[in-house]
Amino acid sequence: MPRKYSFHVNLQDVDHTLKIKPAALADKILSAAGQDADTLGFGVGELGRDRCTWVLSRLAVQTETMPRMGDELIIETWVSEYGRLLTTRNFTVSTPDGRDIGAAVSAWVMLNLESRTPMDLSRLENAVRATEHIPSPVEGPKRIRTEQMPAICRHTAAYSDIDFNGHVGTMRYIEMITDTLPLPLIEQTERLRMDINFLHETPIGRTIDICSVQQAPDFRFRLCDGQTDICRAELKLG
Amino acid sequence: MPRKYSFHVNLQDVDHTLKIKPAALADKILSAAGQDADTLGFGVGELGRDRCTWVLSRLAVQTETMPRMGDELIIETWVSEYGRLLTTRNFTVSTPDGRDIGAAVSAWVMLNLESRTPMDLSRLENAVRATEHIPSPVEGPKRIRTEQMPAICRHTAAYSDIDFNGHVGTMRYIEMITDTLPLPLIEQTERLRMDINFLHETPIGRTIDICSVQQAPDFRFRLCDGQTDICRAELKLG
Repeated sequence: MPRKYSFHVNLQDVDHTLKIKPAALADKILSAAGQDADTLGFGVGELGRDRCTWVLSRLAVQTETMPRMGDELIIETWVSEYGRLLTTRNFTVSTPDGRDIGAAVSAWVMLNLESRTPMDLSRLENAVRATEHIPSPVEGPKRIRTEQMPAICRHTAAYSDIDFNGHVGTMRYIEMITDTLPLPLIEQTERLRMDINFLHETPIGRTIDICSVQQAPDFRFRLCDGQTDICRAELKLG
Repeated sequence: MPRKYSFHVNLQDVDHTLKIKPAALADKILSAAGQDADTLGFGVGELGRDRCTWVLSRLAVQTETMPRMGDELIIETWVSEYGRLLTTRNFTVSTPDGRDIGAAVSAWVMLNLESRTPMDLSRLENAVRATEHIPSPVEGPKRIRTEQMPAICRHTAAYSDIDFNGHVGTMRYIEMITDTLPLPLIEQTERLRMDINFLHETPIGRTIDICSVQQAPDFRFRLCDGQTDICRAELKLG
């Protein structure tokens, strides 16, 4: 059975229209993932004892409507696929009275903290056992191909960008991406589809070029460190 | 009687040493302020009905030790002074078993959302009644004078920087400041004293120069929009 976690949309989560920011919504979704993995005995605390950690490889987030300040969110989550190197975790987001807000699908790898290389997932028996035969609620995160795009801004990774894994965190990538969107568009957005591929880690001090092709409602992104793609993303706003 | 609010130090709050980031600690302190003002009937929701909002004018945060991932924090807060234009709110931060972690003192103004000018606080009868004769736990935020300093980096305010009030939020200013500190120093810091004066609002699209004089353990900052000081700060790290 998928498990449920509740969240409150706080002042800190919203923009000036009192609507949740896309990065804050993703943060709550990933918090549910973290709490669920802890509950089932394969959270980052547990993995840390073996000098391993969870790293997000791909993420898709889809909304029907964007939550507002003061809203309560119920995030239901379950693991539906469990391969040798990649595992799929699903999410539905709804109101306490059962109204659909959105859904998400994520793909994770387990990384060795010393070698920074992916580990065989089959050793996590708790995770193998927790896998459920319930399909993903929306299409999984697509594989995004690289393409030439103009650089529109640049950011050097700093202390505030770095997460517990010592690299730029998911929220910050989403912030870098959404910061380039036309403001009137993001103010009005209720229906969002966001696909992100995380390809390489960005340590502190590294400079990232944010490259983008924007033809509303479609937005494509490449975040690059020189010739290396760090992250690719596609957004559709409605 | 001061009221108590509890917080959990989450994965999202910590750096790669699993220690809370200064901005995340300030965020929890300001969350306690928000919850307490809501409880007492003069929160931003209430003020919004009169097209007013709370804006932080000065903040001092002081720590004895920095909390770690998984820690529970008890934040106790009370209003100790209530003038015509400025009100003082105090905080102590401790562990559930009563160990001192730190303290904070903040000064707030009520801003009219249309004119962006300060309002007379005496009209908030709930707030007048809530004022208690308990002194601040540490020295209040000092008034920082302007001085010439070299610009060390620059940031253009974007969507992710903006809070519910439509201007760059407190956490972001603290992040801009702490991002300039030498990494080995911030990794080791347990005892922190941070004084910040918020002087002007920064709307989206405005470019801020981060100017600083750094002679460890003392760090002084001026965040400027052209010739206008937006924010001044002093940090002492130990």
